[in-house]
Amino acid sequence: MAFQYLTNTALSKAQEEYRNELLKCGFRAVPETVPVQNALGRITAGAVYAHICAPHYPAAAMDGIAIKASKSFGATETTPVVLKKEDYVTVDTGDPLPEGCDAVIMVEDVLYEEDGSVRLYAGAAPWQHVRQVGEDICAGEMILSSGMRISPSAIGAMLAGGVLTVSVWKQPVVGIIPTGDEIIPPISDPGPGDIIEFNSSIFSGMLTEWGMVSKTYPIVMDRYELIREALIKAAQECDIVLLNAGSSAGRDDYSAKAIADCGIVLFHGIAIKPGKPAVLGRIGNRPVIGVPGYPVSGILVLELFVKPLLEIWYGCKETGEEGEREAEATLSRAVVSGLKYEEFVRVRMGVVGDRLIATPLNRGSGMVTSFMKADGIMRIPQGTEGYASGEKVNVKLFKPIETLKNTLVAIGSHDPLLDELSELLHASEPELYLGSSHVGSMGGIMAVKRGECHLAGTHLLDEKDGSYNSSYIRKYFPDGGVRLLECVGRVQGIMVQKGNPLHISEIGDLSRPGLRYVNRQKGSGTRVLMDYLCKKEGIDTKNIYGYEREELTHTSVAAQIANDTADAGMGILSAAKIYGLDFIPICLEQYDLLIPDEAWELSQMQKLIEVLKSDAFRKRLMEMGGYELKEPGRVMERF
Amino acid sequence: MAFQYLTNTALSKAQEEYRNELLKCGFRAVPETVPVQNALGRITAGAVYAHICAPHYPAAAMDGIAIKASKSFGATETTPVVLKKEDYVTVDTGDPLPEGCDAVIMVEDVLYEEDGSVRLYAGAAPWQHVRQVGEDICAGEMILSSGMRISPSAIGAMLAGGVLTVSVWKQPVVGIIPTGDEIIPPISDPGPGDIIEFNSSIFSGMLTEWGMVSKTYPIVMDRYELIREALIKAAQECDIVLLNAGSSAGRDDYSAKAIADCGIVLFHGIAIKPGKPAVLGRIGNRPVIGVPGYPVSGILVLELFVKPLLEIWYGCKETGEEGEREAEATLSRAVVSGLKYEEFVRVRMGVVGDRLIATPLNRGSGMVTSFMKADGIMRIPQGTEGYASGEKVNVKLFKPIETLKNTLVAIGSHDPLLDELSELLHASEPELYLGSSHVGSMGGIMAVKRGECHLAGTHLLDEKDGSYNSSYIRKYFPDGGVRLLECVGRVQGIMVQKGNPLHISEIGDLSRPGLRYVNRQKGSGTRVLMDYLCKKEGIDTKNIYGYEREELTHTSVAAQIANDTADAGMGILSAAKIYGLDFIPICLEQYDLLIPDEAWELSQMQKLIEVLKSDAFRKRLMEMGGYELKEPGRVMERF
Repeated sequence: MAFQYLTNTALSKAQEEYRNELLKCGFRAVPETVPVQNALGRITAGAVYAHICAPHYPAAAMDGIAIKASKSFGATETTPVVLKKEDYVTVDTGDPLPEGCDAVIMVEDVLYEEDGSVRLYAGAAPWQHVRQVGEDICAGEMILSSGMRISPSAIGAMLAGGVLTVSVWKQPVVGIIPTGDEIIPPISDPGPGDIIEFNSSIFSGMLTEWGMVSKTYPIVMDRYELIREALIKAAQECDIVLLNAGSSAGRDDYSAKAIADCGIVLFHGIAIKPGKPAVLGRIGNRPVIGVPGYPVSGILVLELFVKPLLEIWYGCKETGEEGEREAEATLSRAVVSGLKYEEFVRVRMGVVGDRLIATPLNRGSGMVTSFMKADGIMRIPQGTEGYASGEKVNVKLFKPIETLKNTLVAIGSHDPLLDELSELLHASEPELYLGSSHVGSMGGIMAVKRGECHLAGTHLLDEKDGSYNSSYIRKYFPDGGVRLLECVGRVQGIMVQKGNPLHISEIGDLSRPGLRYVNRQKGSGTRVLMDYLCKKEGIDTKNIYGYEREELTHTSVAAQIANDTADAGMGILSAAKIYGLDFIPICLEQYDLLIPDEAWELSQMQKLIEVLKSDAFRKRLMEMGGYELKEPGRVMERF
Repeated sequence: MAFQYLTNTALSKAQEEYRNELLKCGFRAVPETVPVQNALGRITAGAVYAHICAPHYPAAAMDGIAIKASKSFGATETTPVVLKKEDYVTVDTGDPLPEGCDAVIMVEDVLYEEDGSVRLYAGAAPWQHVRQVGEDICAGEMILSSGMRISPSAIGAMLAGGVLTVSVWKQPVVGIIPTGDEIIPPISDPGPGDIIEFNSSIFSGMLTEWGMVSKTYPIVMDRYELIREALIKAAQECDIVLLNAGSSAGRDDYSAKAIADCGIVLFHGIAIKPGKPAVLGRIGNRPVIGVPGYPVSGILVLELFVKPLLEIWYGCKETGEEGEREAEATLSRAVVSGLKYEEFVRVRMGVVGDRLIATPLNRGSGMVTSFMKADGIMRIPQGTEGYASGEKVNVKLFKPIETLKNTLVAIGSHDPLLDELSELLHASEPELYLGSSHVGSMGGIMAVKRGECHLAGTHLLDEKDGSYNSSYIRKYFPDGGVRLLECVGRVQGIMVQKGNPLHISEIGDLSRPGLRYVNRQKGSGTRVLMDYLCKKEGIDTKNIYGYEREELTHTSVAAQIANDTADAGMGILSAAKIYGLDFIPICLEQYDLLIPDEAWELSQMQKLIEVLKSDAFRKRLMEMGGYELKEPGRVMERF
C-alpha cells in the first residue's frame, strides 16, 4: 500500500485493513513449551491429551476392607459369610485396590471376630466402592483443545493426566519508545518546560492487564536519525512496537517518516477524536504504531489498535475469566441433594432455543476436570432436596453469555471423534465451541426431545432389521422436526489385553469362567448392541462376570482392560488403539448425528457441518483408525 | 472459642463467625510503600494527594506565537496591530509560556512581515490558547482515595502529580502445605498408589488470580509432629496458611488437632458438599484453614473461605476491572461533536432514581485524570453532531452496575471537603462511593432539578437580604420536594501570593493597574459573591485585569497564584493553605447541601449524613482550616 500522509480514514476501515494486512504478512504467535505449573493464563497452541489415567490405579473409595466380591456372594442377615484374615485387606480411602480384590466393603458393614476373621451380612457387588481407573481422566483423552486460556483447574487436570509441559503461544512483547526533547523520567520537582514521561507507565499497565509483555526503551531525543535507530532496534527485539511521539504536533511527522523509512505506513491520520494523528504501519511482520503524545489520545489508540492485535496474534479470542454473574437456567437433569448440606454442583451450560440450559456434571470430589469443564456452578441450599428436571435454577456463570451462545451442545453417545470435531471447529472458527456430554444414545434422543441440546450422537441398532437409528427416531419423534445427519461407520469389537492372552475370538468366549468383562451403561448404543449379540448367540448375560460393571465411554472401558482390572469389553477400534489393546472386530455400525430443526437453522451448526465435510476431519479420523467415512455431513433422512 | 470436632455448621454461620473472629483478632494488611510504576492492581492504603500541578507550568496549547495579550488589544481587520520581534515568541504546543506572556495566537492567524515583525487582525483575550497550571491536577488535590485499586491511568495521574511512591496494602502471602504419605510431586509415570500432588498448583493459580501471593511448601509426611512443625513455620512466614490434607478421610483429624495445638480451631465440619471436612482456625492473627484433599472440595473451600479473606485483609471490597459491558444511559449535559470524527467521550456515571446518568468529563487530550475518574466511555459515531442533554446514549461501562448503584452523585459547587467526605464515607462503608463534579452552585441546582444527582453543594448569596441558598431554592423548586442540609460556614477571601507583595487588603485593590486577577466561572457561588462585592463597592469589573479568566475550582485559582500567572483570586482559606498563599478574609458564607426527597430516602444518603455528623469529619475540616462547623447534617429547611 502507498504511504498516506495525515488522512482522515474512518476507524472501522483502518481497523479492518490493518488487520488484513497483518494477517497477510504473517503477524502470528509462535508456540513455546512451558512447564504446566507456569502456564496460568496462557493460551494453548495445540490440543492437550492425557498421558495417563486419573486415577491411574483402582482405588478404595471408602475406608473398610477390600475383598474379591465373589467370596461374599450369598451372604445375608441369616446366612452371614465369614472371611479369613488372608481373604481381605484393610484399606483407607485412596489406597490402591490390593491384587486379586475387586470390591470394598465399608467399615460400618464389617463385624470383626476375635481371631481376625470378619463376618459379612450382605454380599458385595463386584467393583462396589472402588474408584475405577480413569474415572476422571482417561489416557489419550483430550484434556484441552487448542486456543484455550489455561485456568487453575486446567493446570490441575494436566498434572493429573501426567502432562508436565504444555505448548502455548508466546506472549507478544511490546516495545514502547518514548520520544521528545522536553520529556524526562518521572520526578517530583520538574523544572518549567520539563514534561514528565508517564505515558509509558500507563501503556505498560494496560499491556500487562491484557496479558502482553511490555518493554520500555529509554527516552529518545527528537532527532530523526535517533528515532530511526531506536525503531530498528525495537523492531528486532519486540513483536509489536509503539512509537510514542512528543506532545508537540509539529514533530509528529517524524513517526510516520521513520516507520515508512524502515517499513510500511498503512495509515497516518484516523477519523477519531482524540487520537487523530495515529500512525499504523509495520516493519516486516511486526506492527508498528505511532501513538500520539497526549495521554488520553494514547490510551484510546492503544484500546482501538493495540488490544485487537491479540486476536490476530493468538488466532483466537481469549476466553478470559469474567466477573461473577448470575443467570437463570433450565436444569436438564434432576439433581438430588441431601437436606443436611448446602451443595455446590458444577454444570455445563448452553443456549438452546431461547433457554439457557444447565446440565449437572459428575459430582465426585476427585473430578478435577469437572471444574475445568464447568461453565457455571449451581448452589442448592441446605434443607432442599434438590431440583427436578426442567426446573428453573440460578447459576453463577464462569463464562460470558456470548461464549455460551456460541457453544453447540452435544448430548448423547460417546465417540472420541466429538473431541476432534470440537478441536477442528474451534480452530477454523475461533469464536465457536462444541461441548459434549456422554449419556448414551437413548439419553441423547431424550435430550433432543426435551430441547436441551443442538445435536446428539446416536448408534441404535434395530434388532428387527439390523438398521440403525431411523426406527428409534420415528418412535420418539412421531411429529418429526428432526434431521438425521450421516457421520461415520465405525467398527465395534471386543477389546482385549495386548497379545490376547486369553485367546478370545468371539462373543461366546466372554462367559468363560474366570474371565472379567467390563460393560457400558444401559441406554448406550454399545450396550444395546452387546445385549442383542448375546441374545442372538443364546448367551445368558448372568454368566458373564462383570456384566453389571458399567463405564460411560469407550476410552474408560479400554482403560480398565489396559490396567488389568478387566480382560475384555465391547468398544470401538480407536479407543483400543489409544491403549495399545488387541481388538477383535465384530461388526460395522452406523454412528450418526440427530439434529432438531431449530438447531439446524443456526449458522454455528452450518459451520460444524462444514467441518464434518472437511478433508481435515477425514484425515484425522483415518489416523485414529476404525472409521469408515462415506459422506459425513449429508442429511440422511428428515423426519 | 471451644474446639469443635467435625460438626455440621451451616455455611453462612461459619463464614460470618469466622469473619468476626478474624476482625477481632486483628487480621489486617499492613501498609507498604512501593514505586508508583510497580503499583498496578494494588490497593491504596491511604488517600493520595498531588505534590505538583499538572501541567506544572502554563503551556502553549497551540503552535503559534506567545504574547502579552494587552499588546494586541484594539486589533481589527481594518486596524491591525504590529508586534515587533521582541514582543512575541514562537511556540510549539506544550512549550512553556515565556516570561511576561499571557496568551497564544495560532500560527494561522499571524501574518509575518519581512523584518520579523508580525501583523495581527484581531485582539487576543488574556490566557487564550494557554493550558493553565493545574488544568488536569492541582497540587494538594486528592488523586485517589484509600481502598482503591490502582489502574494504569491512576499510575499516570500519580506520576503527573509528582507522586513517585505510594502507600499500598501488602498483598497477603498464602502458605500452602501439602501433606500425605502417598502424594508425590507431579511426574508423568506414577507407580500404583502414588498420588500426584496437583492441588497446590490449582490453589496457587487461584490465589494468583485473586491477587494473593502463594508460597508452596514441600510435601509433609503424615506424621503429627512433622505437620505441626510445618504449620508453625508457615504461620511465622505467611499471612494465611492452607493445610491441605491427604485424600484419606481417616487422617483428616491431624489438621484440626495440629491447628488446635498451635492456635485455635473455630469450626471443623461445614454443612457443604463437597468440602465438609474443612477446618477453620487461626494461629495468632493468621487464618489457618484445613483444606480437604479432594481437588473439587479444595477448590470450593478456597472459593468460600479463602477468597472472602481479601475483604477483611484490605478492609474493603476490591473495585476490580470488569469485563466490557454496554448500558443505556441518560446524558446529563449536551455534547457537541464534529462530523468529521468518531469521538470517544469519557463519562462519570451514577444511578439516580431509576435512571443511569452519564455526565461527560473534560475532553482535553492532556487530561490523564479523565480516564481515571471515568466510569465509562461514550462513542459518538462519525457524521453525528453530538447528543442533546437528556438524550439516551450507549455507554461502555468500566465498573459493575452494582458499584454505580452504590455511588452517590454530587454535582454542584466545589469544595475540597467533598473529597474528604468521599474518603471518610468509603473508609467507614467500603462499598459506598461519593463522586463529585464541579459545575458551580447554579449548575448543581439545575442538576437536582433535572434529577441527575443525589446532592448538590451550594452557597448562593441573596443580594437582597444577605441570606444564603433558601431564596434560590424556593425560586427553582416552587413545588418543593427537596431538603437543604446544613454543611459548613466557610471563610471566603482574597488569595494572594506569599507575603502579600502587592499589599492587597480589600476588594477595591483588585482593579489596580498591572494587577492580574483570576476569577471563578459564571454560575459559581464564589463568582456570584465576587460580582455582588464589586457592585457593592462600586467597582467596574471591566477594570479588573483577568476578570474573564475563569477557573472551575478553588484549588485551581490558588494554583494560578502560586505559579505566578496571577496575583489574586477569590476563594476559600483551605485552598490558600494548600499552596501556602496569604489570605485576606472577606466574609463568612454558608455552604450547604441540597438533597432531593428521593435521594434522601436512600440508605447510602443516611450513611453520608452519619459521616457529616461524625467527629472524624469535624476533625479533618479543622485541620484544613477556614471552616466553621455548627451542626453539619441537620436539615435546615424542607421545601
